[in-house]
Amino acid sequence: MTIHPTAIVSSEAKIGVNVNIGPYTIVHGNVEIGNGSIIGSHCEIGVPTPRGDGSPLSIGANSTIRSHSVFYESSVIEEGLTTGHRVTVREMTQAGRAFQIGTLGDIQGHCRIGDYVKFHSNVHVGQHTIIDDFVWVFPYVVFANDPHPPSEVVAGCTIQRFAAIATMSTILPGVTVGEGALIGACSAVTRDVGKDRIALGNPATDRGPTSKIKLRDDSGRPAYPWRTHFHRGYPEHVVAGWLAALSNRG
Amino acid sequence: MTIHPTAIVSSEAKIGVNVNIGPYTIVHGNVEIGNGSIIGSHCEIGVPTPRGDGSPLSIGANSTIRSHSVFYESSVIEEGLTTGHRVTVREMTQAGRAFQIGTLGDIQGHCRIGDYVKFHSNVHVGQHTIIDDFVWVFPYVVFANDPHPPSEVVAGCTIQRFAAIATMSTILPGVTVGEGALIGACSAVTRDVGKDRIALGNPATDRGPTSKIKLRDDSGRPAYPWRTHFHRGYPEHVVAGWLAALSNRG
Amino acid sequence: MTIHPTAIVSSEAKIGVNVNIGPYTIVHGNVEIGNGSIIGSHCEIGVPTPRGDGSPLSIGANSTIRSHSVFYESSVIEEGLTTGHRVTVREMTQAGRAFQIGTLGDIQGHCRIGDYVKFHSNVHVGQHTIIDDFVWVFPYVVFANDPHPPSEVVAGCTIQRFAAIATMSTILPGVTVGEGALIGACSAVTRDVGKDRIALGNPATDRGPTSKIKLRDDSGRPAYPWRTHFHRGYPEHVVAGWLAALSNRG
Repeated sequence: MTIHPTAIVSSEAKIGVNVNIGPYTIVHGNVEIGNGSIIGSHCEIGVPTPRGDGSPLSIGANSTIRSHSVFYESSVIEEGLTTGHRVTVREMTQAGRAFQIGTLGDIQGHCRIGDYVKFHSNVHVGQHTIIDDFVWVFPYVVFANDPHPPSEVVAGCTIQRFAAIATMSTILPGVTVGEGALIGACSAVTRDVGKDRIALGNPATDRGPTSKIKLRDDSGRPAYPWRTHFHRGYPEHVVAGWLAALSNRG
Repeated sequence: MTIHPTAIVSSEAKIGVNVNIGPYTIVHGNVEIGNGSIIGSHCEIGVPTPRGDGSPLSIGANSTIRSHSVFYESSVIEEGLTTGHRVTVREMTQAGRAFQIGTLGDIQGHCRIGDYVKFHSNVHVGQHTIIDDFVWVFPYVVFANDPHPPSEVVAGCTIQRFAAIATMSTILPGVTVGEGALIGACSAVTRDVGKDRIALGNPATDRGPTSKIKLRDDSGRPAYPWRTHFHRGYPEHVVAGWLAALSNRG
Repeated sequence: MTIHPTAIVSSEAKIGVNVNIGPYTIVHGNVEIGNGSIIGSHCEIGVPTPRGDGSPLSIGANSTIRSHSVFYESSVIEEGLTTGHRVTVREMTQAGRAFQIGTLGDIQGHCRIGDYVKFHSNVHVGQHTIIDDFVWVFPYVVFANDPHPPSEVVAGCTIQRFAAIATMSTILPGVTVGEGALIGACSAVTRDVGKDRIALGNPATDRGPTSKIKLRDDSGRPAYPWRTHFHRGYPEHVVAGWLAALSNRG
């Protein structure tokens, strides 16, 4: 364990073995950090809040939280979290394995995120959003939740597994994006999107099956489902499971 | 008064009673902080700038500024300010009571903001924007000010009281959004919007009166004016004033 | 040289004369900072990364990096850099003289930026973007690079000199924006834009030559090319060069 001498770490925090905590970082008491994790500089980890349920912030083993990030108490993130710089994760966030949050990500809490979900920079997740396994979200995407703001009605979005949401798109309150669907860049998604369909535009409309998009690498292969060709960063057993399931389906 | 031992607070700063200043925060000299305020960690408060008028940064009583925020000198914010993390407020900003700025908010200064104005995350306010009392602004909204960038012409937007600007919308330079108007999500507002009208789209067009939107809570009540049903976070006397005025109007 | 006593500066870093380093800032070893530069508080400069080429981060003379910013190793930025707060610049970024990056700017690295390029707040630059001299980019603009995300295909945008990209616009992968072109606010630019043309909308379409836009200052002069009337912040010899070239062309 290497805690920089300028880090302020509560004696009540439960810090695993081989954890590295950077300069000028604050770790509050109601926190558990798994073995082998790295916390960068200038972070604040485990911010107390009356809006939580009193449970600790739990960060799984082998996680990397980059500088200037802020995590509140009462969230559970499983092992292998990786963040960019300046992310915010509020209370009551549940996230699975190998969650990746790009720089400036802003998770408002009270939401549920699956395994191997990847957010690029500057993604905003409203409360009560549900995101399934293997979803990709690109920069400046917003998941909204209030159908007639401001109000007390909260209608989170649901994003099903393998969906990809391209940059600068907004998913409007209560919308479900289906398994393997692709939301094109700069879209405003006001209605549910079906399995393996493309939705694009403001407002977004159906543009056919994702299978019609070809890879721009002269292979002539289809670009979707993306898991047929894009495997970087996933464990071998995960990829093997995808390919076996696709083969059974085909 | 609790100033963390790692905070760097100028002896010239005027700090009220019961003020709490967090670790690794810097408070410059040309600053006044009202009684009972809380400044989080890793902030820089009162940044000197030649673009101000030499007046101090004045933060009203009972304010909360969350971590990693930056405020310049020569702004006046009245009591009850609440910010998220990493907000920036430049010089020559005037803001009223109970101003709320979400995480990553970026106020460029030289602007005027009324009482009880609420910004959600990642709102960008160009110079010379005017925002009246009780306005709501949702994530990733931009108030622009240059009609043909880059130029020396500055044409700030004006947002009248009770208006609500939904997520990912841009208000173009010089536009006035009328009292109680609703700007739908992902809109580009290029023309003035009338009182209690809905504008939506890119470019935004008129979509009728806000009164036609019903609350999605099975009450059958109209969702607008939102002040008929949404009162969370406002003092009782403020709400009573709204309801009395609506009743006189009806 | 003034290094704040709380700054953590590696003895291996090469720091020029009259450099000022603020409180709670970290400077790693593989860093060169030119004479007369100012680094604000709470920064992390020269973050090590295996994705670089082992070369140092080189920041030219007379640069200003504002608080909470993060720069990785293996980038070269020439003299006169100015940043807002909380910018991120990843490895393998090459940038010319007088580069300006607004608050919250996010440069993903592996990109090439010319001289006198100006980014307003919250600009996102994907890897393999190329931006020529004298380009202006306004808030919340995204330069994308993956034509069918997620994939291993990287197709950066190219922005030619004197182009201006207005707020909340996205330049889609592989697109070239021509010299002097204007991208209107809230546009999704899916195709190349010609020299001195206006593109606007989602998806963006051609709207004629930039010369048809008049300055809104009662002068009746054209607003474009903007270098005929907007000279703030450029050295005299640069402006003289522009005007001579325009005169020869006219």
